[in-house]
Amino acid sequence: MSKKYVYLFSEGNESMRGILGGKGANLAEMTNLGMPVPQGFTVSTEACMKYYENNESVSPELIGDIYTYMIQMEEMTGKQFGCPENPLLVSVRSGARASMPGMMDTILNLGLNDLVVEGLAKLTGNSRFAYDSYRRFIQMFSDVVMGVPKSEFEQIIDCLKTKKGKHQDIELDEADMKHILKEFKKLYFRHMGSDFPQEPKTQLIEAIKAVFRSWNNERAVIYRRMNDIPSSWGTAVNVQSMVFGNMGATSGTGVAFTRDPSTGEKKLYGEFLMNAQGEDVVAGIRTPQPISELAAAMPEAYEQFLKIADTLEKHYRDMQDMEFTIENGKLYMLQTRNGKRTAAAALRIAVDLVDEGMITEDEAIMKVEPKQLDSLLHPQFDIISLKQAKPISSGLPASPGAACGRVYFTAEDAKKAGERGEKVILVRLETSPEDIEGMYVSEGILTGRGGRTSHAAVVARGMGRCCVAGCGAMKVKECEKCFIIDNHVVHEGDYISIDGSTGNIYIDVIKTVPAGISGDFARFMSWADKKRRLKVRTNADNPKDTEQAVAFGAEGVGLCRTEHMFFVNDRIHAMREMIVSRTAVQRKKALDKLLPMQKSDFTGIFRAARGYPVTIRFLDPPLHEFLPCDKEEIEAIAVSMGMTYDELNTVVVSLHESNPMMGHRGCRLAVSYPEIYEMQTKAVIEAALEVNLNDSMSVEPEIMIPLVGDVNELRYVKKIVTQTADKIIATSGMKLSYKVGTMIEIPRAAVMADEIATEAEFFSFGTNDLTQMAFGFSRDDASKFLDDYYAKGIFESDPFARLDTAGVGKFIKLASDLGRTTRPDIKLGICGEHGGDPSSVEFCHNAGLTYVSCSPFRVPIARLAAAQAAIKSEKAK
Amino acid sequence: MSKKYVYLFSEGNESMRGILGGKGANLAEMTNLGMPVPQGFTVSTEACMKYYENNESVSPELIGDIYTYMIQMEEMTGKQFGCPENPLLVSVRSGARASMPGMMDTILNLGLNDLVVEGLAKLTGNSRFAYDSYRRFIQMFSDVVMGVPKSEFEQIIDCLKTKKGKHQDIELDEADMKHILKEFKKLYFRHMGSDFPQEPKTQLIEAIKAVFRSWNNERAVIYRRMNDIPSSWGTAVNVQSMVFGNMGATSGTGVAFTRDPSTGEKKLYGEFLMNAQGEDVVAGIRTPQPISELAAAMPEAYEQFLKIADTLEKHYRDMQDMEFTIENGKLYMLQTRNGKRTAAAALRIAVDLVDEGMITEDEAIMKVEPKQLDSLLHPQFDIISLKQAKPISSGLPASPGAACGRVYFTAEDAKKAGERGEKVILVRLETSPEDIEGMYVSEGILTGRGGRTSHAAVVARGMGRCCVAGCGAMKVKECEKCFIIDNHVVHEGDYISIDGSTGNIYIDVIKTVPAGISGDFARFMSWADKKRRLKVRTNADNPKDTEQAVAFGAEGVGLCRTEHMFFVNDRIHAMREMIVSRTAVQRKKALDKLLPMQKSDFTGIFRAARGYPVTIRFLDPPLHEFLPCDKEEIEAIAVSMGMTYDELNTVVVSLHESNPMMGHRGCRLAVSYPEIYEMQTKAVIEAALEVNLNDSMSVEPEIMIPLVGDVNELRYVKKIVTQTADKIIATSGMKLSYKVGTMIEIPRAAVMADEIATEAEFFSFGTNDLTQMAFGFSRDDASKFLDDYYAKGIFESDPFARLDTAGVGKFIKLASDLGRTTRPDIKLGICGEHGGDPSSVEFCHNAGLTYVSCSPFRVPIARLAAAQAAIKSEKAK
Repeated sequence: MSKKYVYLFSEGNESMRGILGGKGANLAEMTNLGMPVPQGFTVSTEACMKYYENNESVSPELIGDIYTYMIQMEEMTGKQFGCPENPLLVSVRSGARASMPGMMDTILNLGLNDLVVEGLAKLTGNSRFAYDSYRRFIQMFSDVVMGVPKSEFEQIIDCLKTKKGKHQDIELDEADMKHILKEFKKLYFRHMGSDFPQEPKTQLIEAIKAVFRSWNNERAVIYRRMNDIPSSWGTAVNVQSMVFGNMGATSGTGVAFTRDPSTGEKKLYGEFLMNAQGEDVVAGIRTPQPISELAAAMPEAYEQFLKIADTLEKHYRDMQDMEFTIENGKLYMLQTRNGKRTAAAALRIAVDLVDEGMITEDEAIMKVEPKQLDSLLHPQFDIISLKQAKPISSGLPASPGAACGRVYFTAEDAKKAGERGEKVILVRLETSPEDIEGMYVSEGILTGRGGRTSHAAVVARGMGRCCVAGCGAMKVKECEKCFIIDNHVVHEGDYISIDGSTGNIYIDVIKTVPAGISGDFARFMSWADKKRRLKVRTNADNPKDTEQAVAFGAEGVGLCRTEHMFFVNDRIHAMREMIVSRTAVQRKKALDKLLPMQKSDFTGIFRAARGYPVTIRFLDPPLHEFLPCDKEEIEAIAVSMGMTYDELNTVVVSLHESNPMMGHRGCRLAVSYPEIYEMQTKAVIEAALEVNLNDSMSVEPEIMIPLVGDVNELRYVKKIVTQTADKIIATSGMKLSYKVGTMIEIPRAAVMADEIATEAEFFSFGTNDLTQMAFGFSRDDASKFLDDYYAKGIFESDPFARLDTAGVGKFIKLASDLGRTTRPDIKLGICGEHGGDPSSVEFCHNAGLTYVSCSPFRVPIARLAAAQAAIKSEKAK
Repeated sequence: MSKKYVYLFSEGNESMRGILGGKGANLAEMTNLGMPVPQGFTVSTEACMKYYENNESVSPELIGDIYTYMIQMEEMTGKQFGCPENPLLVSVRSGARASMPGMMDTILNLGLNDLVVEGLAKLTGNSRFAYDSYRRFIQMFSDVVMGVPKSEFEQIIDCLKTKKGKHQDIELDEADMKHILKEFKKLYFRHMGSDFPQEPKTQLIEAIKAVFRSWNNERAVIYRRMNDIPSSWGTAVNVQSMVFGNMGATSGTGVAFTRDPSTGEKKLYGEFLMNAQGEDVVAGIRTPQPISELAAAMPEAYEQFLKIADTLEKHYRDMQDMEFTIENGKLYMLQTRNGKRTAAAALRIAVDLVDEGMITEDEAIMKVEPKQLDSLLHPQFDIISLKQAKPISSGLPASPGAACGRVYFTAEDAKKAGERGEKVILVRLETSPEDIEGMYVSEGILTGRGGRTSHAAVVARGMGRCCVAGCGAMKVKECEKCFIIDNHVVHEGDYISIDGSTGNIYIDVIKTVPAGISGDFARFMSWADKKRRLKVRTNADNPKDTEQAVAFGAEGVGLCRTEHMFFVNDRIHAMREMIVSRTAVQRKKALDKLLPMQKSDFTGIFRAARGYPVTIRFLDPPLHEFLPCDKEEIEAIAVSMGMTYDELNTVVVSLHESNPMMGHRGCRLAVSYPEIYEMQTKAVIEAALEVNLNDSMSVEPEIMIPLVGDVNELRYVKKIVTQTADKIIATSGMKLSYKVGTMIEIPRAAVMADEIATEAEFFSFGTNDLTQMAFGFSRDDASKFLDDYYAKGIFESDPFARLDTAGVGKFIKLASDLGRTTRPDIKLGICGEHGGDPSSVEFCHNAGLTYVSCSPFRVPIARLAAAQAAIKSEKAK
């Protein structure tokens, strides 16, 4: 028997997400629950992967299967595909295992052709509806399947409306529709050189192929990369018999959530449009009514919907996001899925569901996407600054948080500005999936059209960006790069402020402050903390960041980089003196100036860490980073240092390196100039002694030697540290424990970790450098070619953002295992930027590390990710 | 019982090299053989390591032991240490496990003081001898133990000679010696602030400590690095009772070899000086007589020495290098060891010893140092060019080979010139161990003083440099940086030519040609080839190198770099056109110009490889390497390319990378620009088809994709190659097999080798890049800090010259093992510069690789090293 690639909805169930995709599995489940679902079938994700294996072609066997299932659909519906008398029309929709809203393609009303449309008109007695449906189908099919630009079709409609002085599509009548249809078909012929395909079976197979293809369209690839979705999953295709929300006054369509996706409040939340198809709601072109108004408009359907919503939430034990259509008064469920929600809502829903007895604490922990917590920690407006500001208008509060930045009108401009380091507010009439990268770099998004379920709103919530949507008062003039609200004209580059929690829009620059953390948060995180085994530390180079991180739950500092301290204005001079020294004596003199500054940094950090361990990494970057590089700067600094230009320039030139990443840095500096680490040791030890004495603390500093590749390097440098430290401690007459360990960031160190662990009391995996050197990718240069890697499917994610667990992970495991052979109780941590990435945290949990360390704002993310990892690995047992 | 650190000569034997050092073990062995060896004891290498463990101090226990053994020596010799009536005088000499001639320190006549010297004068009736011995001792002890510069002592002597109008030390009389002694002691006091130590026991312990310290002097560290000697071996110290070759007309001293160390001829070969101490011979200050003349001078001693020499050679089954002293007519053996020899001599001796039935072929293979073969392959003078030249003088032919280069007078100047890329001839009055680095960078060495056993001669032979020694006609004026022979004045930077095989010196520039390979060589190498399992290929980028390598025994090309071909004048233009292309179409047009050029390279190489496999690596370096970088060049090239300066400069700037080593290169280029590898594939496949058709060969090209770190990269690029290749082959109607494999040079590739091997038909370890990335060392920058690593004992050898078997080797093993799990018959090779380094070859043998690939001139070295590795691993079984 050949493999099964097609499933009726009645053949599937919720557990078959992997092959049916999320949408297909849920349609099957709703079918099983006896809910009113327009019937159909799902072409599996395996068929999609087969399509790619066969050089993007669909096998004759699969085509045969699809036709067979069409016949079954005809039997179930009592309608016939391509039959004008009683036509079966279908929708063709993508549906991957993970929800990827708007990323892939949908075609509605498939099965219409020149004859069928006449039949449909007769059958429904609604010619305008029939022709409107056909023209929608032609438009979608041409765009999605054939790549004929949607905008050219829109132009035809706009042109007609202008000619006839109409504003809304709905004002166009049957004759107009017929005219449009004729023009659409001409346009199609112009582009394709052939007539619009009349054979419904051909339409169907081409549509299915188009959905398969859309799995690899650019925005889907980007979305997957941002959301860690493997390309090998593929998408399923759902073929479902059409129901029509645009059949007249007793028809409509809507989307609703069982709880408020912004706040988590337990109440039905959503919107609907009468006499419309689903695309009208999602696209946000018409502004819909709140769901509660459906009670008055269609009480029976509303009651039925309420019951279904309740059943679904209880069944899935999670907040549901549902799509429905009412056709001539009859309710149909088109989709249900666990709803996307803001972080605040996610927390509240998780906590409420536990309180409602619906889920366990562990299940609650698994329900919140760690990355989302980020948005909770993001800025809100400073109250005083806000009081002085007056909104010039408001829109829908579509994604919470506040933002202030410069206005840009295209995703591309926004992206460029973001790359320049500007804070950006992206302003669009409405957003589309093409805008996703521009949205990503923006602080906030402001749109002129669309509701809280529009593309802009959904995506912004997912990304944790603040969003104000559907500000009807705003006239966006993209071509002139400005927008107008009343008599305010705001140009590209002007500052505005928006509040995604109130919907307010300001032309003032309003200060933002970090978000307060709610009670739900504390309660929820306490569950996570109970569960996790991994400790979470922070990367912090100063007392302020350390304090912030400890407030966010950090259990110490995993990485305090000492070089950042030297860039501060009054210190860089002493640092430069040190660098241009020609003798050890000169160098020591300069270092003596730096000593008290370093010491005061460390006392501050030790105090802020409140007794938690602090790991201090000694000087790491190549020395030339501290020197000026252009002629004028060198001249100016030479004067201030009492040197000639030539003298200083000679030093600058002598420090130039071909590949500074792999040059004279890290412990290699200490091998050449031991006095640098001597000074740093003094600063650490003296600071610890002082804090322990004055603040009655018991700091045990952890000194971390960077860039070690061989045990001899560490042995040599450690001796410098311990000799210096032990002398100071002995002189002080006090007791002080300290540890000396190393970063594992050189590939050779990973494979020599057994030897290195004989000297190192702890390892901290520097996954940034380890990734660079394991791949041989210079982080500064790799962006030039990594885009080609994504485009050609060679890489699915950025190894600098998401730990490459297969390769770099192997180094970590290898080093951990080897390290434990010679030092069984070795402390193992990770301090690269991966420390705050949830999938990387999961890897660290599984590799048996002691802690992860990440930037302060990622601490809660790491705490939650660590708890989820613990739960997952418990389950796997 | 406490550990034994001191051994009488009679307690040791040959097999105890490890703890007694070579000299100590051989003194013990000669003692056991009943030969006349002045008795004494050896302080073991373990005592030396203990000294370093104890922070460079000698334990009271060891001092006690040494005193005890001194008492035993007193009993054996019937003399007393420090007793003026019958004084025991001793020599204190270093002796490591491996011979390190001249690298460490020696002190003679220890035990003399103001009283003992009087006794010695009385006892010998030779006051001049006694005072001369004392002044020698003071001089050596002050220099070696206390660090008072030798030259200041020499000045005192020179000053006196000038005053008295004398030329030779020997012309100075007893009164002169007394005067010198007084001045020496004053000099000592001036430097040290105390009197010269009179207590012999103190002298002894200080001298032993000085020898221990000398193990880590700079020249010893450099010598070890160049000869792969571990610092953990340490040196032993031999304390031996003195015999005196400077006691008058019936005394003398000499060195001799059982066979000619230059040619290997079987005849006693050596030199002696009457009335002299050993240092006089080795230092080459007086020019000695040939050993054969000893027969006339002292027939009895000569006969005895001949017998001993013969016995020792048979006993050690190798050519011996012996030192002897005759004291008042009585012969004493001071040392024997396997003699250093030229490569030609090494081959001849090895072959002769087999023919004499003394050793087996396997033993013969083990007797030749692979690195030495290099010198056999090094240039000789071109005969025609030589005929037109006339020597202006000649010296002793001390190390064979011919060289032409610019004259430099100090090791430092020679080193600098060598680093500038100049060919250097180092000219010195005499060389000393401090000159070793200068000698290393030179093509040849010319000295004014010293024989064929002088420092210059011994070291030059060891390094395979040509050397002409003891050219008495040459006046070297180091301070004026010139030398004079007759009326020829040669200044620094002038060219000269020297012939180390004839001793001739020319002021002409004489062309050199590669050496012919002798009959011994072919026979010897055939034994090696029988024995080895590893194949040896060559790294060659053109037909000429390929031919040369095949003549040297290469079994194919392991690495043909395709980028070098693009730097040739007529090609670089097309290459640049390709790089500045803005579209794939433009790029293809430029590549079309390069195609026929590449193809002709490959047909040439395939022909030169005579049917052996050829591995072609596709374009590897970042594209900016092909572009100009300074303004004038960019301007000129822009004109020739029909671009504006700004246009071209934009391209140059856009290709700039922070760390080009880890940038857009290797297979990453092919991911971005597949058409480059398409063109290269075409060139390879068309060339192979053409050669197979026209030359009736059956070339099977191996296409190697560089810089792969992930199987997806290789899969993508391989598809480009196979699609292109298969199409051409199909069109040709001919049959052609080819392989596609990859370099393993990215650390990640090593740990992901199982996945990569599913696509790669072979691996070639690119150990240059693998070393760079495993260590995180940029090769271009590392020299800046690696000197500190050597100086501080962190590294013992340069990982770019000698494979880091512990770390990089682990990656190779890991990748080999993983690769075999998914492709059991995978071909494994190494193509870094390590392929010609003997210790690295041994590693490759043990790791089970298929072949090593190295530069043509290192092919014989690799063949021999592979045979030695096979023999060693057989023995180890």
